Amino acid sequence: MNFRVRAATKDDCKHIERMIMELAVYEKMPEQVKISYKELERDGFGPNPFFECLVAEVTEDLKSKEGYTIVGYALYFYTYSTWKGPSVYMEDLYVMPDFRGNGIGKGLMSKVAQVGKEKRCVRLQLSVLDWNTPSLDFYVAKGAQDLTASEGWHYLRFDGDALDRLANEAPKD
Amino acid sequence: MNFRVRAATKDDCKHIERMIMELAVYEKMPEQVKISYKELERDGFGPNPFFECLVAEVTEDLKSKEGYTIVGYALYFYTYSTWKGPSVYMEDLYVMPDFRGNGIGKGLMSKVAQVGKEKRCVRLQLSVLDWNTPSLDFYVAKGAQDLTASEGWHYLRFDGDALDRLANEAPKD
Repeated sequence: MNFRVRAATKDDCKHIERMIMELAVYEKMPEQVKISYKELERDGFGPNPFFECLVAEVTEDLKSKEGYTIVGYALYFYTYSTWKGPSVYMEDLYVMPDFRGNGIGKGLMSKVAQVGKEKRCVRLQLSVLDWNTPSLDFYVAKGAQDLTASEGWHYLRFDGDALDRLANEAPKD
Repeated sequence: MNFRVRAATKDDCKHIERMIMELAVYEKMPEQVKISYKELERDGFGPNPFFECLVAEVTEDLKSKEGYTIVGYALYFYTYSTWKGPSVYMEDLYVMPDFRGNGIGKGLMSKVAQVGKEKRCVRLQLSVLDWNTPSLDFYVAKGAQDLTASEGWHYLRFDGDALDRLANEAPKD
């Protein structure tokens, strides 16, 4: 299938919003999405962006039944290991269902790896839900190590009231 | 105990390097550390820094037996949730053994939460090894959710040859 992977621009944010929602519907949690294209524009395409994004685009003759030529995205940002240095973290990887099986997901992920390496990143990391075995198998087949299984890493989060409490208890400058 | 938490400067990097190594020795993996203060200076204090860092400092009369007044650090960076928006991720939190039990770790973590909230972050996230129950208990007691236990997130990584292979397979622009 004829597709290209390119850096997203501000004009792509409505499409990225649409695909974030498609992914959340697939994951049966659409009500969790609090982000719209306006936040994506502000957070990814202003000064000091929080993320970078790639989109996969097909030619006009291959457009989706809804008329879309942007059919996938990979959203990522840079993290840091105090042992190894810069890493790239892929937050989302998504391809519209009708376009799967054509190497688009692999193409997006490989491009994230390439962009990361250009910034001296020594790791590409991501998280997968344990019930999502097709994705787990895909990543492991491509060479990923499952650090939760092999090293026992647990992923923790503070949000809402717990985060507010913490922040309010910060020592004075 | 009299201590203050402040943003690290380039001049603190030798101390941060020292404490990164102390933490790795505690974790019995000192040979894993490939980072020195020179990389920390470049990666954290140049243009487009990969991380930010706080240090905890005690007064001169409380200095460690080795003569150090910088006795702890928290190293963090910003990440992004496509459902919720900006988050702050705490990569390392460390306090020298003789200075524990005085609220320094809590002070560093609270300050990370506060700095994160100032940047509109809605989450503070971190990872902990499953055998490290004192730390797991500490974070959960402060209000963290264990997402690996509750939602089944697995943490995956590509590095070395697997990362090179991926990057080399990226589609052409």
